[in-house]
Amino acid sequence: MSDLFWPGDERAGDHFTDAAFVRALVDVEAEWLGRDLPTPDPGDLEHLAVEAQRGGNPVMPLLEWIRGALSEDDARMLHRGLTSQDVVDSALMRMAASAVADLRDNLAAVVDGLVPLARAHRATAMVARTLSQHAVPTTFGFRTAVWLTAVLDAYDDLTRLEFPAQLGGAAGTRAAIVELGRPIPVGVPRWHTTRAPMTRLGDALAGCTDACARVANDVIVMARPEIAELAEGSGGGSSTMPNKSNPTLSVLVRRAALTTPQLAATLHVAATQQVDDRADGGWHAEWATLRDLVRRTLVATSQTVDLVRGLRVDPDRMAKTLAGAGDDVLAEQRAMAELAGHQPAASYLGDTDAFVREVVARAERTVR
Amino acid sequence: MSDLFWPGDERAGDHFTDAAFVRALVDVEAEWLGRDLPTPDPGDLEHLAVEAQRGGNPVMPLLEWIRGALSEDDARMLHRGLTSQDVVDSALMRMAASAVADLRDNLAAVVDGLVPLARAHRATAMVARTLSQHAVPTTFGFRTAVWLTAVLDAYDDLTRLEFPAQLGGAAGTRAAIVELGRPIPVGVPRWHTTRAPMTRLGDALAGCTDACARVANDVIVMARPEIAELAEGSGGGSSTMPNKSNPTLSVLVRRAALTTPQLAATLHVAATQQVDDRADGGWHAEWATLRDLVRRTLVATSQTVDLVRGLRVDPDRMAKTLAGAGDDVLAEQRAMAELAGHQPAASYLGDTDAFVREVVARAERTVR
Amino acid sequence: MSDLFWPGDERAGDHFTDAAFVRALVDVEAEWLGRDLPTPDPGDLEHLAVEAQRGGNPVMPLLEWIRGALSEDDARMLHRGLTSQDVVDSALMRMAASAVADLRDNLAAVVDGLVPLARAHRATAMVARTLSQHAVPTTFGFRTAVWLTAVLDAYDDLTRLEFPAQLGGAAGTRAAIVELGRPIPVGVPRWHTTRAPMTRLGDALAGCTDACARVANDVIVMARPEIAELAEGSGGGSSTMPNKSNPTLSVLVRRAALTTPQLAATLHVAATQQVDDRADGGWHAEWATLRDLVRRTLVATSQTVDLVRGLRVDPDRMAKTLAGAGDDVLAEQRAMAELAGHQPAASYLGDTDAFVREVVARAERTVR
Amino acid sequence: MSDLFWPGDERAGDHFTDAAFVRALVDVEAEWLGRDLPTPDPGDLEHLAVEAQRGGNPVMPLLEWIRGALSEDDARMLHRGLTSQDVVDSALMRMAASAVADLRDNLAAVVDGLVPLARAHRATAMVARTLSQHAVPTTFGFRTAVWLTAVLDAYDDLTRLEFPAQLGGAAGTRAAIVELGRPIPVGVPRWHTTRAPMTRLGDALAGCTDACARVANDVIVMARPEIAELAEGSGGGSSTMPNKSNPTLSVLVRRAALTTPQLAATLHVAATQQVDDRADGGWHAEWATLRDLVRRTLVATSQTVDLVRGLRVDPDRMAKTLAGAGDDVLAEQRAMAELAGHQPAASYLGDTDAFVREVVARAERTVR
Repeated sequence: MSDLFWPGDERAGDHFTDAAFVRALVDVEAEWLGRDLPTPDPGDLEHLAVEAQRGGNPVMPLLEWIRGALSEDDARMLHRGLTSQDVVDSALMRMAASAVADLRDNLAAVVDGLVPLARAHRATAMVARTLSQHAVPTTFGFRTAVWLTAVLDAYDDLTRLEFPAQLGGAAGTRAAIVELGRPIPVGVPRWHTTRAPMTRLGDALAGCTDACARVANDVIVMARPEIAELAEGSGGGSSTMPNKSNPTLSVLVRRAALTTPQLAATLHVAATQQVDDRADGGWHAEWATLRDLVRRTLVATSQTVDLVRGLRVDPDRMAKTLAGAGDDVLAEQRAMAELAGHQPAASYLGDTDAFVREVVARAERTVR
Repeated sequence: MSDLFWPGDERAGDHFTDAAFVRALVDVEAEWLGRDLPTPDPGDLEHLAVEAQRGGNPVMPLLEWIRGALSEDDARMLHRGLTSQDVVDSALMRMAASAVADLRDNLAAVVDGLVPLARAHRATAMVARTLSQHAVPTTFGFRTAVWLTAVLDAYDDLTRLEFPAQLGGAAGTRAAIVELGRPIPVGVPRWHTTRAPMTRLGDALAGCTDACARVANDVIVMARPEIAELAEGSGGGSSTMPNKSNPTLSVLVRRAALTTPQLAATLHVAATQQVDDRADGGWHAEWATLRDLVRRTLVATSQTVDLVRGLRVDPDRMAKTLAGAGDDVLAEQRAMAELAGHQPAASYLGDTDAFVREVVARAERTVR
Repeated sequence: MSDLFWPGDERAGDHFTDAAFVRALVDVEAEWLGRDLPTPDPGDLEHLAVEAQRGGNPVMPLLEWIRGALSEDDARMLHRGLTSQDVVDSALMRMAASAVADLRDNLAAVVDGLVPLARAHRATAMVARTLSQHAVPTTFGFRTAVWLTAVLDAYDDLTRLEFPAQLGGAAGTRAAIVELGRPIPVGVPRWHTTRAPMTRLGDALAGCTDACARVANDVIVMARPEIAELAEGSGGGSSTMPNKSNPTLSVLVRRAALTTPQLAATLHVAATQQVDDRADGGWHAEWATLRDLVRRTLVATSQTVDLVRGLRVDPDRMAKTLAGAGDDVLAEQRAMAELAGHQPAASYLGDTDAFVREVVARAERTVR
Repeated sequence: MSDLFWPGDERAGDHFTDAAFVRALVDVEAEWLGRDLPTPDPGDLEHLAVEAQRGGNPVMPLLEWIRGALSEDDARMLHRGLTSQDVVDSALMRMAASAVADLRDNLAAVVDGLVPLARAHRATAMVARTLSQHAVPTTFGFRTAVWLTAVLDAYDDLTRLEFPAQLGGAAGTRAAIVELGRPIPVGVPRWHTTRAPMTRLGDALAGCTDACARVANDVIVMARPEIAELAEGSGGGSSTMPNKSNPTLSVLVRRAALTTPQLAATLHVAATQQVDDRADGGWHAEWATLRDLVRRTLVATSQTVDLVRGLRVDPDRMAKTLAGAGDDVLAEQRAMAELAGHQPAASYLGDTDAFVREVVARAERTVR
């Protein structure tokens, strides 16, 4: 899958494609039935999608398709005890579990790219900037540790996620399962109209692009030609200006981050519409929203891996900017030293080293 | 195009597909060049999409593809004077103009479905409900006129839209065009970093689903079996309950309406990121967002056409509910009559008739 | 504090008022300084608020006010080592911790109101509704257990929250603290530009109104006069219709839930703007957004307590509706029984009892 | 009114305060009644706000308060024919009309500040930046004309707004008015459950902060010390760094712009909840949302007036940066000249002058 409206989309691979959705739906039905089932070909997907409109979801046409491929006897027990929402929700969560595993790998790769930078630049002095203006000295290692913190926070949130299957039958009561005399499976929840598994997922996904934007924003600022302390490994060109080398990866990462908060909000809005024993629209609004959230975070984290791996750091330029900032950025130090009644210390880097060490240690505990 | 995650998506036809995007991009280049140009085959789209990532947008790989199909001489003047953003923005607006024309047709068809209902049910008494509780008498014709008002408001907003081409060259200055000695076209604006044409479009699209939800919400309430004053023409079935006839069209319309406000907000968020002479992410976040807004409003308005055309109205049930509501819903009338010092009038329907007439007249002025 | 635009606002008490903010800011400074400090009077707040604009936040004018109340000697060490963001963020988190404690109490009170309902109505049969239509039988106890699940999920998310203080000095490096020779406090993090503590808080708060809406939506549907299975304890009146008894608490709860997802999204959008060592707007956008999120969830959860405590349940009406739904809602059962080759069982309530027991047990583990 | 969580809030003056709301509500009742009415004192507002919760809106307690101040005879006709929503919606629109008039004045003042800049700097060459990198030459006058375009677009959207009163009575049917024998007023619409007047307002307000952010974003970038082409008139200080001069106005403007898109989306989400003859939460969610939108846009536009008036422009630094960018930014020109078969022209500024002229002319047509 690729998307001309979302350059880089193919980085999300097969996650949450129509084909993956059908496969997951079939897998859920197959596990419930206790036997293998045929899966529609790519060529059948459009038909299924079009037919999905009648019942409002893809399960009914899929069941019809599967039944067409089974003997009448085999077909009889298919889906018995389930309802469409059991199958769709379980399939979405199955796909989400797999996507989040890849997301965690992506974030771990970002971490793997950042840790050596943090270590290498522990003593690389640069100017800190607050509200866009020169503030005090800092180090690029410290900055990298800040990026690491953002990424590790997002990683922790992914780790906490659960991907519950759904099993409730027509209205959550499991009446058909009991009537059929099937044992009630242990530990499978029902959450037809309580959507915390969905909103938590969306919130954590938005957290991933928040973290990636944290890196990308700094790269774009520091790669401005007037600053030039950082550069993307291989910049993007222009269709008309031969001179351009644009921070394209950072730009595309920021793009994603501007869209995911609203997608996560849509999952919450959908949650506010839960009513009765199946919501009249709130449920249906989740599917494509989750798909877009998942694919965009996969793409953005993958692009951040490339961004971090290719990042070019210019310590000389950092030193030059800091030197050029001059005495001003030591004004706080002078005030503090005066208060303390001593001469300003040789360096004004605080405990940046300790922070780098702590964060690197956290990184090692977290992703290994 | 169809979408298993968004049942009904095929109703949006070819609008804003990858193929339509490429075709629009080629058309923009062809018009600027003043000659026909070849268009990539569907089989080439994935390659273009993947390559789009390097420059951040699809124009560069498309130009490369086109150049490969032209003689070197012919290729030389391709795209000269333009920048990628000129081509992408112009293509998006071209596609939007075409989609909005279809959207207006859809809304006009909704209007055409509602006007006879409003007329036919001018005297169909029913109970008005406020904050979910019985209030006073009203008519179903009045209610239909309210729906019409929502749809006409959305239609008016579409009518006001403009779809400007974009022509500014590398940074909006048109320097290349001047250098090339080409005359500056009259009346073509430049809005590289002022995105009102985009946010106005998004806002108007969200207005369309607001209006469709206005109808769908009422249908769902009034089609509840305990109320049963309305029913969808042919309800949707269930994967496990033979008894079900669900208001599926209404459900799918509500679904869309729950997602578009956040998409329109994303276009505004993107607008807040406009900076320099081309935004570093804010621009890129618009494309897929607009695509989803356009397709979802096309689908929702088309589903509303079917919903309205198929709507089954039960005046007897309305009368029965009103009668059952009893004296309570005339409590206000009694108070007013006492204040006015006369006996309550025979009917308590206010100027509902006049409202129906006004709105029907507005409908006829608007969509014809 | 009260708010004419947000009826019920006074339920949020003093949480996140201007006065509470100033008090928290003073407390942070006082703890850092190691001595008590005076707090501005209510009458001083407007002056502080107006002056806050110059530096962009309220800390500088507050420091000036405090210094005016201290001797020059005492004033010298005030705020030394800190930066405005340390004080504001620490104050926000302190206020948030206190508000979330009250929120948890509110949710616990909702749970306390729901558990007896779930127990009492374990056998109260009613019709389940999916996509607004009658589905199969269920119990009101089961429905109450679903509500409980929503509330417990929200409670769990609150429990997981952390409210870190902020301590980094001018640019996170703690250079001033080191220069002053103060020991670096153990375990106090710095998160000036990595805002997971803020977005997690916002997401969890939105989860609270999602859960309250879960209850309110059902009450509004089931309190419709045609359904009349539930009623609010004391409905709200109308300014003109003497007959009205509106489900006002539910309406106001739904109101809140429609606004919080977008507020939580704003915190994520703000997070995507983190750059350098202090964000140029992304930080400032958080304060009022968090305030509104906190107060609205406090109000909504408090209103839900009243809603649940006052809820009037009509088991007879539930029974009548179920009986009226007739054979249709047993259509699934007949199909299952036929598949299983036996006569339909006497009841078709599945394992609703077990679900009620499980959820009540979870409630007791969670809130006690 | 001021707000410690939103520095600068007092710039919005009395617009949409509780006192203004009550005054507007009283004015609506007074006009309908055809006589003057007393207005509650500030001291009464808290009581009204608290009582508002029972009916869900402030009208009922206000009527009770007014009635207490009238003779029984005088009190009898108060509010007769109206419903709460008539009064609240009419009051909101009245307040909005007044606020939008001030907003237009603010934007006009921004325009007045920008026009002289555009004229003065028509020939002030600087480097254009796309995707954060040096692109081609441009002028600061051109950039100012881009800002003007953004502001004029927002101004046009405000101009198009309408602020309809609301008059429908209990359920929109005006039955009480007819029963009372009052003539039906001509040209007053009813839009109880079709909220285009509200969503259009919200969208236009979000457009105002989009426009202000357009200016603020550039100021922040160009005021970075490494670029230093612009500076705010008087920068904001720091609580700990004596050296700082922060672009505080720009920061606070960006802050607002990050929040308004989600508030406007909330109005659309509320619109999607319109149902029956009065919405069960969708209506109530609008009031505070609109208040915040209005006040924040008033504050942001007012801050932008100061920003523009005080803006310090450094043409020498612009020239130096452009010179330093060197041949690279003329690479496109060389390519074009070669294509055209001539030597590169002396200047590569395209039709920037014409654009400045056009936009200044538009400004003069628009705001005068």
